[in-house]
Amino acid sequence: MEKLKKYVSVKDEDHFYHQGAVELLIFNFLLILTILTIWLFKNHRFRFLHETGGAMLYGLVMGLIIRYVTKSSDVESGTIYECEKLKSGPSTLLINITNQVYEYQYKREISHHNVNGHQGNAMLQKMTFDPSIFFNIFLPPIIFHAGYSLKKRHFFRNLGSILTYAFLGTAISCIVIGLIMYGFVKAMVHIGQLKQWEFHFTDCLFFGSLMSATDPVTVLAIFHELNVDTDLYTLLFGESVLNDAVAIVLTHSISIYSPKENPNAFDAAAFFQSVGNFLGIFAGSFAMGSSYAVVTALISFMHLTKFTKLCEFPMLETGLFFLLSWSAFLSAEAAGLTGIVAVLFCGVTQAHYTYNNLSPDSKMRTKQLFEFMNFLAENVIFCYMGLALFTFQNHIFNPLFIFGAFVAVFVARAFNIYPLSFLLNLGRKQKIPRNFQHMMMFSGLRGAIAFALAIRDTDSQPKQMMFTTALLVVFSTVWVFGGGTTPMLTWLQIRVGVDPDEDLKAKTTSQSASNLDKNTTKAESAWLFRIWYGFDHKYLKPILTHSGPPLTSTLPKWCNPVARLLTSPSAYGDQLKDGDTDYIINNDELTENYESSAHMPVPTQDSTGSIQATGKEDIQEGDLGLGGYKLQLQRTAGQPQKNSLA
Amino acid sequence: MEKLKKYVSVKDEDHFYHQGAVELLIFNFLLILTILTIWLFKNHRFRFLHETGGAMLYGLVMGLIIRYVTKSSDVESGTIYECEKLKSGPSTLLINITNQVYEYQYKREISHHNVNGHQGNAMLQKMTFDPSIFFNIFLPPIIFHAGYSLKKRHFFRNLGSILTYAFLGTAISCIVIGLIMYGFVKAMVHIGQLKQWEFHFTDCLFFGSLMSATDPVTVLAIFHELNVDTDLYTLLFGESVLNDAVAIVLTHSISIYSPKENPNAFDAAAFFQSVGNFLGIFAGSFAMGSSYAVVTALISFMHLTKFTKLCEFPMLETGLFFLLSWSAFLSAEAAGLTGIVAVLFCGVTQAHYTYNNLSPDSKMRTKQLFEFMNFLAENVIFCYMGLALFTFQNHIFNPLFIFGAFVAVFVARAFNIYPLSFLLNLGRKQKIPRNFQHMMMFSGLRGAIAFALAIRDTDSQPKQMMFTTALLVVFSTVWVFGGGTTPMLTWLQIRVGVDPDEDLKAKTTSQSASNLDKNTTKAESAWLFRIWYGFDHKYLKPILTHSGPPLTSTLPKWCNPVARLLTSPSAYGDQLKDGDTDYIINNDELTENYESSAHMPVPTQDSTGSIQATGKEDIQEGDLGLGGYKLQLQRTAGQPQKNSLA
Repeated sequence: MEKLKKYVSVKDEDHFYHQGAVELLIFNFLLILTILTIWLFKNHRFRFLHETGGAMLYGLVMGLIIRYVTKSSDVESGTIYECEKLKSGPSTLLINITNQVYEYQYKREISHHNVNGHQGNAMLQKMTFDPSIFFNIFLPPIIFHAGYSLKKRHFFRNLGSILTYAFLGTAISCIVIGLIMYGFVKAMVHIGQLKQWEFHFTDCLFFGSLMSATDPVTVLAIFHELNVDTDLYTLLFGESVLNDAVAIVLTHSISIYSPKENPNAFDAAAFFQSVGNFLGIFAGSFAMGSSYAVVTALISFMHLTKFTKLCEFPMLETGLFFLLSWSAFLSAEAAGLTGIVAVLFCGVTQAHYTYNNLSPDSKMRTKQLFEFMNFLAENVIFCYMGLALFTFQNHIFNPLFIFGAFVAVFVARAFNIYPLSFLLNLGRKQKIPRNFQHMMMFSGLRGAIAFALAIRDTDSQPKQMMFTTALLVVFSTVWVFGGGTTPMLTWLQIRVGVDPDEDLKAKTTSQSASNLDKNTTKAESAWLFRIWYGFDHKYLKPILTHSGPPLTSTLPKWCNPVARLLTSPSAYGDQLKDGDTDYIINNDELTENYESSAHMPVPTQDSTGSIQATGKEDIQEGDLGLGGYKLQLQRTAGQPQKNSLA
Repeated sequence: MEKLKKYVSVKDEDHFYHQGAVELLIFNFLLILTILTIWLFKNHRFRFLHETGGAMLYGLVMGLIIRYVTKSSDVESGTIYECEKLKSGPSTLLINITNQVYEYQYKREISHHNVNGHQGNAMLQKMTFDPSIFFNIFLPPIIFHAGYSLKKRHFFRNLGSILTYAFLGTAISCIVIGLIMYGFVKAMVHIGQLKQWEFHFTDCLFFGSLMSATDPVTVLAIFHELNVDTDLYTLLFGESVLNDAVAIVLTHSISIYSPKENPNAFDAAAFFQSVGNFLGIFAGSFAMGSSYAVVTALISFMHLTKFTKLCEFPMLETGLFFLLSWSAFLSAEAAGLTGIVAVLFCGVTQAHYTYNNLSPDSKMRTKQLFEFMNFLAENVIFCYMGLALFTFQNHIFNPLFIFGAFVAVFVARAFNIYPLSFLLNLGRKQKIPRNFQHMMMFSGLRGAIAFALAIRDTDSQPKQMMFTTALLVVFSTVWVFGGGTTPMLTWLQIRVGVDPDEDLKAKTTSQSASNLDKNTTKAESAWLFRIWYGFDHKYLKPILTHSGPPLTSTLPKWCNPVARLLTSPSAYGDQLKDGDTDYIINNDELTENYESSAHMPVPTQDSTGSIQATGKEDIQEGDLGLGGYKLQLQRTAGQPQKNSLA
């Protein structure tokens, strides 16, 4: 008997080990299937179901199989045991069952209504892996890659519009969804589907903020493949990337918004605290991300005499780059900030500074590594979303709420895109045409971030209902709108097959000829960016990279000893050329542009406009920053006819 | 009160999320420190502490800090609760504590003696991550990389010796350690340190098998850096890689060896069953690994007319390659075989077939990706080993057992290397000199595999004592012998700075001149390999890769339709050159060699020896396979003087 028991326990253990392998194998299998499908699709130029949609579909089928084929293995599952001696839940529980001590690990607090028969299905449980793995491991590479591969030139050209859509647009979207959902919730209470106390207005706002995160993956993959018009691509890319960050911070701020008295009443103090939180978290995360990137740049740039440069060991360099970037995310999370924001700006800063210091080998290594991780992580996330529909055990399907969510999402998207585009068009020289606006409206897919935000908290019934609804919205938008992207592009007659660089050049030359007279007034409005670029070019680039002028020429005389210490020897060689620009960076026409005026004694702020940019890019003009944009708006309000000619 | 409670629960949850980030951050921090240290060491050409030793040291310090700085957070920890209603431990336990249901997840069965004060320290618990993560995620890339980057030419040149060391040597080592430890255990029982029933002879053998896995990482990294003599490098590399596989399967076989009656008595049936298990598991894992690689090769090779080749999408290709290779590991584990063996042979086969089909871009991508993953995984594992000394909560330090283990490990290594080298030297033309033997004796480091095998099962007291001892042996050997590698090489006057290719050529030409007369007799002995290579070259290579002769010329006439279907169009072009060999493969002088004779009608098995290999490599000779070796041994036994001249 003793022997038999031991034998059984060994078998059990084996079983446990293989379980880990089985689950990973299932994921691998799904991913392999997805890759093969992508290959098939690419061969047939079949674009109605995108790879992300395919991954989700496979996940869904697998989830269905796991749910209904595997059986609940424990007879005790679903039974609640009483324990009078315990006062609170310890993280580890030791239980004596028939003279054998078992160790149990705290997983979560659950409500009574969540206890159902599927609880004991170990397979289901293991397949729905911890959201913290999702957050800490699969999300960072995607966001980092977005920042790292940002086409800065196009991005900065449209920065004002992007920031408007991302910040103002997300706020609008959040509030509109919140209001509409609140209406639906009231109606549901009215017809008796819901008890009022379960759903506060803040819950609706919470739902609004998480549903405001649009997904960059699916649409942009198609855009990238088709070489869609660069301005549209940049607008959508910038919007969806930054909007994720905004939505995340917004969700976080709302979840910690706690009005003192009645949760339905508006509490000004709590509201302003939330706004303060939002700004603080955003700024803190930004700072955290950039400083990690700056540290990486400094390390990769070190040229102490005794030391071989790090770039002579590509493996160490790549490793350090990877680990420091990931640490930016983890540190921000550990410090209570938002890791996604940190890693996004870390990516941007790494591309701007560190990338220039890397050895050619490491440049390629990092680029390919992040591309690959991005590819895998994306597919894992979409597979996992598909799986979650059947493996998550506490779904609450409420048809009215789901219907409300669909309505709210579309209305909010419309309230975001059309009015903001109208306002932006008042200021933009290069208008956002109607078909672009329709396409942006159409591209409001919900994806990984909305899902991640919803799954983070599924303890209460309202949160579970939100999760279920968010999942359905993600599925529908990815399949319907993701699949409809190509037909929609044709229908809206949007240009495809555009070479981004050619496109930019063509646009800027035609503009700069006709808009020469407006240059100076607009250049003034971008003063913040010009200061930043001057500072960046004169001080940061020389300190952090091998490019830019030597510090000895940009710093005052008395700083010379310090300047000499900090300047790379190679900087003296290529004093006036910003040589390290590369295909991934594609940048710094702006810097070069500024450079030509940086060495002049007097800034070109006179009103003749004869010096500034004629053949070069007019990035400082027009569309830079909200500040400049508002100024523009006021001026043109009186004379709309004249301005719309441009 | 309600509000406060809710606030606390939100805080708690936040705390839980950040915990995940904090632990990952600690690991990142350790890795960053390690990388910076490696950089420092490389600059100072400081080789007394290798990077793996450094990683372990940092892990150790961090473990110390975590253990003694963080405090046990739960007051309830260490208390055992009674539960009369439960009959066995369910995988999920729902417990009602003061009207709130908590979900607990089954972790493990623990013995009463393991319950101590540190149980409740959540930080310690989280840092000692699940061994299955270690096994399923960090180990495969290291082993795969070993197989993928195998220098086949040198490997096959020394195959006989490598197989002898790996199979026979590991078995000797296992038995010697087992016997010595059994002696020590008897002595411990005699002086009253141990109750006899706790430690059977099979436990000693189990310890022997896990301590027989030598570590390839540390020594080979130094050898690689210094370009040590290629034969020595290959012998050690081959031995330690294959020996890991053998030790793992051996450990598995011993752990399921269950004699019917007295566990101390020898049970022939159970013994033969164990031997059968060993062979079955080894063969099964080998088959599993190779077949995944063959599937990869087939997919990457598909040239159906309608399909674009996969190699036009490097990302998909790399992804598929990566996932299928990992699946080889996971499938083997899931099927109850040994993943390590599967992934090792998967790596070898991938390098042999699939690598030839990859696009140039993917060739580099996969190579760099696996290199990078290997680098990271290695450092994670060594950091983790350092951490484990302080974070593992159930160490049992027994000085006599530890002393015994050190004695046993060295004696066993000596019994492995010296007698086997003597026997092998009887047959080898290229003798293994004394200083090589000393170096091999010295390089018997214990590392990741010994650790992984020991940590897999730490439930009972004997297993815990084994784990503690194994950990200490790993530490000492990595630090002392790893650090002493460079001085030892100097002291033993072993050549460094050798170019592997030049070296091989020099050796083979000098040999083939003097040994011309022995060629034919030896060539006969390697018939198994010649058949294999013929088959590989004529059928497998053309089916699975773009190289080799077209199938239409190797298959019989009546197979032509099938052959035409399976042959790549490009194969007709470069019919006689094996063009796709590459720096990673470095192979197929053997194949080319054989190729020249493959088209001849009669196999060259006549005794004149006029046709075979004169300027080319004599791989078929001398040292190929145990079968051939034994044949050799019998022949030379009568005339040892004459043969040792060669």
